[in-house]
Amino acid sequence: MQSQEQLTVEASISAIEWSGGALRLLDQRALPEEVRYLECLDAAAIAEAIRSQAVRGGSLVGIAAAYGVALAARSIGESDDWAAALADDVAMLEASMPDIVQPSWALRMMQERTRRLADHADVPGELLSAAMSIHHSDIEANLTMGKLGAQLIRKHQKGKQNLMTHSNAGALTGAGYGTALGVVRAAHAAGLVATVYVNETRPELEGARLTEWELTQLGVPAQVAVDSAAAHHMKSVPMTWVVVGAERIAANGDVISAMGTYALAILAMHHGLRFMVVAPSSIIDMGLEIDDEVASDDPSDNDGRRKLSDLTSNPQTFDVTPADLVDVIVTEKGLVERPDATRIADLMSHRRLH
Amino acid sequence: MQSQEQLTVEASISAIEWSGGALRLLDQRALPEEVRYLECLDAAAIAEAIRSQAVRGGSLVGIAAAYGVALAARSIGESDDWAAALADDVAMLEASMPDIVQPSWALRMMQERTRRLADHADVPGELLSAAMSIHHSDIEANLTMGKLGAQLIRKHQKGKQNLMTHSNAGALTGAGYGTALGVVRAAHAAGLVATVYVNETRPELEGARLTEWELTQLGVPAQVAVDSAAAHHMKSVPMTWVVVGAERIAANGDVISAMGTYALAILAMHHGLRFMVVAPSSIIDMGLEIDDEVASDDPSDNDGRRKLSDLTSNPQTFDVTPADLVDVIVTEKGLVERPDATRIADLMSHRRLH
Repeated sequence: MQSQEQLTVEASISAIEWSGGALRLLDQRALPEEVRYLECLDAAAIAEAIRSQAVRGGSLVGIAAAYGVALAARSIGESDDWAAALADDVAMLEASMPDIVQPSWALRMMQERTRRLADHADVPGELLSAAMSIHHSDIEANLTMGKLGAQLIRKHQKGKQNLMTHSNAGALTGAGYGTALGVVRAAHAAGLVATVYVNETRPELEGARLTEWELTQLGVPAQVAVDSAAAHHMKSVPMTWVVVGAERIAANGDVISAMGTYALAILAMHHGLRFMVVAPSSIIDMGLEIDDEVASDDPSDNDGRRKLSDLTSNPQTFDVTPADLVDVIVTEKGLVERPDATRIADLMSHRRLH
Repeated sequence: MQSQEQLTVEASISAIEWSGGALRLLDQRALPEEVRYLECLDAAAIAEAIRSQAVRGGSLVGIAAAYGVALAARSIGESDDWAAALADDVAMLEASMPDIVQPSWALRMMQERTRRLADHADVPGELLSAAMSIHHSDIEANLTMGKLGAQLIRKHQKGKQNLMTHSNAGALTGAGYGTALGVVRAAHAAGLVATVYVNETRPELEGARLTEWELTQLGVPAQVAVDSAAAHHMKSVPMTWVVVGAERIAANGDVISAMGTYALAILAMHHGLRFMVVAPSSIIDMGLEIDDEVASDDPSDNDGRRKLSDLTSNPQTFDVTPADLVDVIVTEKGLVERPDATRIADLMSHRRLH
């Protein structure tokens, strides 16, 4: 499904690159007006890029943080206890992350790698290699998800289809290719895409600013619309799938994603569209089960499950889509159709497909 | 339900005033930063205020146009055939209107009045009086709708409730008091309102710009939110009603209103909220039945019913909410619960309640 042309295009909008001993991060605040890169030479620069939202999206933030640990190791010199020596920089990187992303799987993997270092190892080299491995496996995961998602789109209906997406779950949120947009571009490459309806995604306009730009770069027909027109478009044009990304997925299959995703899931059900969530398994949090968010004045109503407001200090940015509104979650480990706690647990016990 | 205090507040945000032989129109483009009035001395000035959207909303546009006819009569002097003498100005006023508003009930009433003029009548005076009568009966109609709507809100649940509204259907869209916001303020005066959730209403931001300003002027607790957060709020806080206005209502009860209204009706149904449309009977168009908007490549599928795109050149601004998603339409003639063609026809055969 990958042509050389696609790979070239992909490279041209890479949000993260390791080059010449430095990490180059696409400054997403400047898009679409300006394509500007930040050159990060130490952990502090990466923490600042995360904090200022120059980079965003769970996967990309995690990968950037992993490189941050590798850069931190470079400045330490010699140490007998690398985990202790790196602790301050790890804490700084973790503190820079949007709270919804924490705890970062990537930082956990880097800490695990640090603990397993052999004596007299080339520590900066080993940790850089670990970060690169996280980076490359994210690209592989995205390619796998793209393929699985496009197969689903073809399975239910042959030929060109109108799709809808929300926020930006493209190459810009990860190491490359994209999650939801990875599925969209794989479907486009397979001749399955008529037009992609892109919700502008208030309040941050990720759809209008980033997704539209990205799809245009890729030559995928896209139409931006205000969020509140989604139902109107679902009714007005034949449409088959809503394809979105996720910031975090709970153990029961509930999906935390950009504000407006929950509404789209309801509207999709009402109009008979299928609803696909595309996300790497790394963002599935088996320790998290989300409450249904109905406010109650009675604290005894709280049975210990967590609410969205427990997970983020910025509840305007995210909402929760209950698992029963989701037709399928696409991960690099495989599909979870009609997700629930049992099926999510099944998936997480699998080895990766690739 | 009307206290003196309310009437004073109402006067302070009047969108239209006849004063000193001129029509003063609140320039809504400048809100909320600036409260600026346009002084209109002839029909051309009013047509320009309508065209430039300094005034907006079906009722207000109609009332302004009626005054435009009265002002036109003033500049003509003497005539044997007033209908012919005024025809150019009437056409200019009609052409200035957003297409969704046409044909304007107010202009039709003015033309009717013109045809029935007695010989040697004081024509400018008679037509000014007719315009004033349209103006005042709009205020009366709004007060009646406010009372009826607030009674409904109380009927289903006593005590303070969270409501949601969309776009601006307040005093700014008519002669005063408002339609949906008339219900909200009558409910507030009756002690029934906890917080009003105001969707910002992309693309024109009528909610964030106008409704929030108006509710703040009135001392009604209001919270502005991006449109795509509506479902999240419906799930997160106890809420009882969505109360919206309409631009036009078809003979079958389908509602043309600001973009996003259709989505809210679906989301309200999903969350078990009631959905109220508040509009004067003058905007019910018994000649209009709207198609369900599903696009078809086969022209023979068109059974002659009209689609939204036949009614407006700006389909981004409006959508259609099918009658079966509406719990009640509140008009000055009375309520239409669970609206359909028969019940709408019943209502239209009633005389006005007041």
